[in-house]
Amino acid sequence: MKARVHITLKNGVLDPQGKAVENALHGLGFGGVSGVRQGKYIELDVKAGDKAAAQKDVENMCRTLLANTVIENFAVEVVD
Amino acid sequence: MKARVHITLKNGVLDPQGKAVENALHGLGFGGVSGVRQGKYIELDVKAGDKAAAQKDVENMCRTLLANTVIENFAVEVVD
Repeated sequence: MKARVHITLKNGVLDPQGKAVENALHGLGFGGVSGVRQGKYIELDVKAGDKAAAQKDVENMCRTLLANTVIENFAVEVVD
Repeated sequence: MKARVHITLKNGVLDPQGKAVENALHGLGFGGVSGVRQGKYIELDVKAGDKAAAQKDVENMCRTLLANTVIENFAVEVVD
């Protein structure tokens, strides 16, 4: 089963990488850009009996490895 | 207007970072995982007259800065 994971910084956590991208965009002439936040996007295949089990598995992976839950949120979407 | 950008490696391009994540997941007991691919996810606000203009602007940003179009694909979604 294919799963998609979005990992984003929690609100209030500074995002220097996003800020750097924003400044670079301004320098390139894209002045109307603000609020740039950069996160991670992970696609993976997981063996599971059904969609619910796959969802649970991938959420466990996020908690143990993929996301730093102190400063990051994650969202898991099992596709089929 | 809020835009979401997904940047993923093209098919056939090696993804050592994804491979490292996959190996780590195996080591943690998630044996059923395969095909891990890691990409970037960027959220940003952009000033534009309408949705189509915003879409065009953000696609230009991807081509000039956000994505390396030699090895990466990008997908832009303007939310509202």
